[in-house]
Order: sequence, then C-alpha cells, then structure tokens
Amino acid sequence: MENFSFQNPVKLIMGRGTIAQLAHEIPSNKRIMITFGGGSVKNNGVYEQVKAALKDHYTIEFWGIESNPSIETLRKAIEYGKENKVDFLLAVGGGSVIDGTKLISAGLLYDGDAWDLVLSGKPATHTIPLAAVLTLPATGSEMNAGAVISRHETKEKYPFYAGYPLFSILDPEVTFSLPDYQIACGIADTFVHVMEQYLTTPGQSRLMDRWAEGILQTLAEIAPKIKENKHDYKLMSDFMLSATMALNGFIAMGVSQDWATHMIGHELTALHGLTHGHTLAIILPATMQVLREAKGDKLIQYGERVWNITTGTREERIEKAIRCTEDFFRSLGLTTRLHEENIGEDTINEIERRFNERGVKYGENGDVTGTVARKILETAL
Amino acid sequence: MENFSFQNPVKLIMGRGTIAQLAHEIPSNKRIMITFGGGSVKNNGVYEQVKAALKDHYTIEFWGIESNPSIETLRKAIEYGKENKVDFLLAVGGGSVIDGTKLISAGLLYDGDAWDLVLSGKPATHTIPLAAVLTLPATGSEMNAGAVISRHETKEKYPFYAGYPLFSILDPEVTFSLPDYQIACGIADTFVHVMEQYLTTPGQSRLMDRWAEGILQTLAEIAPKIKENKHDYKLMSDFMLSATMALNGFIAMGVSQDWATHMIGHELTALHGLTHGHTLAIILPATMQVLREAKGDKLIQYGERVWNITTGTREERIEKAIRCTEDFFRSLGLTTRLHEENIGEDTINEIERRFNERGVKYGENGDVTGTVARKILETAL
Repeated sequence: MENFSFQNPVKLIMGRGTIAQLAHEIPSNKRIMITFGGGSVKNNGVYEQVKAALKDHYTIEFWGIESNPSIETLRKAIEYGKENKVDFLLAVGGGSVIDGTKLISAGLLYDGDAWDLVLSGKPATHTIPLAAVLTLPATGSEMNAGAVISRHETKEKYPFYAGYPLFSILDPEVTFSLPDYQIACGIADTFVHVMEQYLTTPGQSRLMDRWAEGILQTLAEIAPKIKENKHDYKLMSDFMLSATMALNGFIAMGVSQDWATHMIGHELTALHGLTHGHTLAIILPATMQVLREAKGDKLIQYGERVWNITTGTREERIEKAIRCTEDFFRSLGLTTRLHEENIGEDTINEIERRFNERGVKYGENGDVTGTVARKILETAL
Repeated sequence: MENFSFQNPVKLIMGRGTIAQLAHEIPSNKRIMITFGGGSVKNNGVYEQVKAALKDHYTIEFWGIESNPSIETLRKAIEYGKENKVDFLLAVGGGSVIDGTKLISAGLLYDGDAWDLVLSGKPATHTIPLAAVLTLPATGSEMNAGAVISRHETKEKYPFYAGYPLFSILDPEVTFSLPDYQIACGIADTFVHVMEQYLTTPGQSRLMDRWAEGILQTLAEIAPKIKENKHDYKLMSDFMLSATMALNGFIAMGVSQDWATHMIGHELTALHGLTHGHTLAIILPATMQVLREAKGDKLIQYGERVWNITTGTREERIEKAIRCTEDFFRSLGLTTRLHEENIGEDTINEIERRFNERGVKYGENGDVTGTVARKILETAL
C-alpha cells in the first residue's frame, strides 16, 4: 500500500422521489442557476420535479451544455450567471452537464477567460457552491472534484479540477428513459474507470482489489439483464451506484493508477466526437494487449475473479481475460475497433504527434508515451 | 435498494510516518487535549511521534481512558479539559479512546452531567473538534460518528452519537506491537461489523453485497498470515483499512442492518468485562443458527462467496457456513462458547430481563426480543 490521504465530502442522496429534497437541501436565500443539457429532462419528468422542488427559490436556467462540454458554451453560462449574480449552481444532467458546471463554478469568480483556468492545470480554489441531480450514470462527476472540458475550435480536451458538489441526488427512476446507446456507454465508462485504478501494480491492497472487482462483477452481472429490461429499479440502482463508486476515490486508496486508456480516448473524442465511454471500449482491450507483460499478474487475477478464467497457461489466461473484456463491450452493443468507426492512420499519427509534443508519459509506470500510444491505437485498428 | 443519504467527511491519512502530519493538520493556535488509554503508546514509539509532531502546539494530556470507556473516567477528562479551556481533542489509541473522546467533545460544551448526553439517545450537535491517531484497528470509530459508553456502577453500556473526527491518522506500523489477543478481537470485531450490515435482507444491493464480501474475503485471507507474522506491513495495512471500511457507512448504502449480535455482546461486556470483539465471536454463530431461516438466502450467498461452499443441500450449506464462521473465530485463538468463559444461565436470565424491560426489538426484521436473545445465548452456551 502506498501512503494516501482520502476525503470525500459529498452528500449522496439516493432513491425514489429524492429530487423533492432539493427544497430543503439548498438554502432558501440562494440565487440558483440551474444548468441543463438538451431537452431530455423535459420529457422524463425530471425538469418538472426540479422546478416543483425549487418553486420557492430564486432560479434562472441555462440550457445547452453539450456532450463533452465546450468552453465556448460555458463562457456564455458564466456571463449569464454573472449578470444575474447567482451564488449557487445546480447541475441537472449527466457527467457533461456536471463537468461543465464545475468550470462555471470557478469561472463565476474569475475575471479573465475561463479557458485560462483549464490550461493552468491547477485545482480551482475559488468556486461557488454547486450540487447535482444526476440523470445519466457514467462519469462519477456527481461525487468527485474532476471535470473534462473541450475547446471545439482547436479540438482540445483537458481535465480540470474544481471543488466537490455539496450534494448529489440520484433517483434511479430517471434513468429508465435513457437511450440504449447512452446506457451502453455509461456501463463501459464505469467499467474502465475501475480498470484504470485496478489493472496496475499487483499486491498493493487486497481490499481495494476486492472492491474494484466487486464493481466489475456487478457490471458483468447486470449488463445483460439491463439490456433485457432497463426499467428494472434494482438493476438501474446497481448501475447508478456502481458508476458513482467507480470514480469517487473509494477504490483508489493506496493504489497506483493508470489513465492511459482515458487519455487516448479523450483524443478520439476531441478529434472525432465519439462518445467518451465508447472510445474507452475501443482502447482498453488494446491497452491490455500492448501492456500485457507489465500488467500480467493483475490480468490473471482479473480474469479469475471477474470472468472465472481458472485454466490454461499464463499467456492463455491473459489472452482470455482480454477477449472477455472486448466481448463484454461488444455485448453492450458497442463497436470495439477503430476501423468500425472509420478511424485510421491519420488519427493515429495525430495522437502520436500530440503526445510527443506534450512529452506525456501516462500509465502507472509512466511508460505510455506517444510511441506506445501508437502501438495501442494500431492494435485497436 | 432502500432510499438512503450518505455522507462521511472524515479525512483519512494512512501510511508509514504519517503521524508527523499532525503538525500541519491541527491549526497552530489550538489548545489541544491529547487523550490516551494505558501506557502502551509509550512503548511503541507513538507517544514520542505525537509529541514531536505537536512540539509547537499547546497540549495537555489526559491518560487512562480504559477499554469500554466509562462515564466515571470521562467525567474527569471533561473537568480537566474545561479547567484548561481546551478547544481541540486528539485521541491517541484504539476504539475505546476515540469513543470516550467523542463523549468528551460533547461534554466540554455541556453544563450538566455527560451521562445525560448518553441517556438522551440523541446525536450530540454541540461538540468541539476532534481528531484521532489510531493504534488498534477494530471499531471503525476513527471514521464514524458513533461511540459506546459504559457506566461501571450500574454495569450499563449504551451507544452514543457525536460528530465525526475531522481527520484520522492510520500508520500500520504502530500495530506491530499489539498483543495477539487484541489483534484477534480486532479481526473478529471487523468481521462482525460487516456481518451486521450484510447478513440481512437478500437482493437489496449487488454492489454493497460485493463490498461487504470483499472485506470478509480479505479478513479470511489475511488472518492466518497475520498469525504467522504480525510485522508484515502489507498484511497489517489490509487489516487496518478493512477495519476502518467495515464501519464508516461505505458498505451500508441502501441496505438493512441487523446489530442484534452487537447488542447482546454489549451486555456480556457490561456484565463480565469480556472484550467486545470476543463477545461477538461467541454470539454471531449462535445468532446465525437461531435466525437461519430468515437469513437463509444470505447465508447461502455468504457461504459460497466467502467460504467457497458450493455443494450440499440448502440446509447443509447453511450449516457449513455457520461452522466456517465459528471455525474462523477459533482459528484466531478466541473461544466461541459461553461456558468456555464461565458464563451461564444467570447471565442469560439477566440479559433476557434487561431486553424485556427495555422492550427492545433488534435485528433487520425487528424480531430479536428478550426471548430470542435467550435462544441465541442458549445456543452459544
């Protein structure tokens, strides 16, 4: 176990009918800006529930935070919030809306261009309070301090760290109306969040390994059942809680982390607009393949505990574990190869170029350079 | 899944040499009372580390918080703290020292007798900040808001709820010098904390089940190895982290809880002074036996996932799961029967009488009355 410091102050409110609790969770004297994505919350009852709960509060609304929230959109939100002197933000949506709102929370107290805050690479220390009503389980943004912000004009996408939400409300019923593709991407995203914190150095923490495997086992178990019936409250609760627990620090205590798959995936989204969870389903099996030697012991453990692979030589077991992972993503209905998304050599060249230019070294061993990223992408072709 | 609200604000600082971080974790203008149990911290280097870290802070020391901290001792600590106008408490010890310090943190701001606070049954809302340096993994008090306080003159023992510690420091190296019996009781305590939140209603949360099982699997794996070598840093880290995660709310989201074993165990400690974890090792197998019908499905799942029991009839599998549990406690070096501790019919009568007098109904189904407690105790004879 590596030394660590852990703290997560978010209040998690989960269950049927919990959106109504907004009424007393936000002080009545707050000037709230509610942030939304597209209009789906107007079709699934979430918008009405939020407005009903906050009928005695001051609220304004900002609509249109898109998938992979862009600085271009967020600048408008910040301007609108400043004009109306808001002092509380409520993000109603999925990870993109919450991520975008995290930048707004810092941007409202910053005089310059909010893109500076992203480029600085430093955690924002001066933010206004925010809370969330989650509608799409996937990113874990509802219970962590991270965000990812894109800049469309330059096709860039970078992480940003703001404060934690004060609280997040998770009503599994609001997920019933999600499109199948979003559910598939959400499950893939959750799965890979766990893998980035698990498929690393072996033997660091028996307990963290078990908890990571517990999320993976849960996802493997519920994914086919959700495909049959996405209106099953218990299944969607398991999915929603798994997504939150996959990226709130709970499985990261004292263990190394990887994140190479994510960093490559971000580039695919930035360059092609491919949905984040989908990019991970394409990249992860290739990352496993390219780094199979360094990650071998953990791959064996993963195969045994998550996919029940208990026979074969070491190399056969590793091969099976990787195949099970790719099969799992395909069973969700996702493609897992770049060529299936018409992505080819040009993109590989560009990502290698960007990684080399930035001099990055991702992965738990700091060995995923531009050259290794090329190998991973070529393996994913 | 039941609706739930979860929040745990404790900052957990874990690893080698982390006691030194006290120097900057506690503001320099605080008037700190450090609370201790007996003198073991003077023999294992913890006392010196704490004093060195706080050499530039104002500190006074209160010594002598005993196992099962008593109101009689804590009244003295509160008086001493008031005299010296302390405004920060640092508990250095195991669960008893931290539990006792939680009552002190409320008692320092209360004008009456602190026993009133315990008897009120209400969470304390007015407390002074406290932090902890943990020396004995077991109770989870370092990362929860609970405590158990005893009154020696009447042989009573009740739960008490104060605030959470601001932070807790866990250096696994400080556990190397623990006596074998304390380690055994700590492992048993951790195991049963998990069982109280797990061996209840089946099918509530796949993820919480997996996480609870993850702690149990970890304990089952490390216990025999710790017996061979309690100076193994990795093993003791796994133990220490497991004990904290067993009772900090992380495995309790949206699931029922039992606590009948604990409530009966508390009586054994109150009446006979038997160490808390040891009482649980005696009571849990009997609770499982008496409630085997209501808990049957979960017992089967537990047997399969924790003890690899996959064959036999339903009743045989349940029987095996209970036997594995009792065998596990015996493998720690603990007795698991009342007669082995010279406890008999008189005690059973007294506990039944107390439960009936209080009209209690423990367990996830509220059916553990005085009569059922008698059955459990008779089964444990």
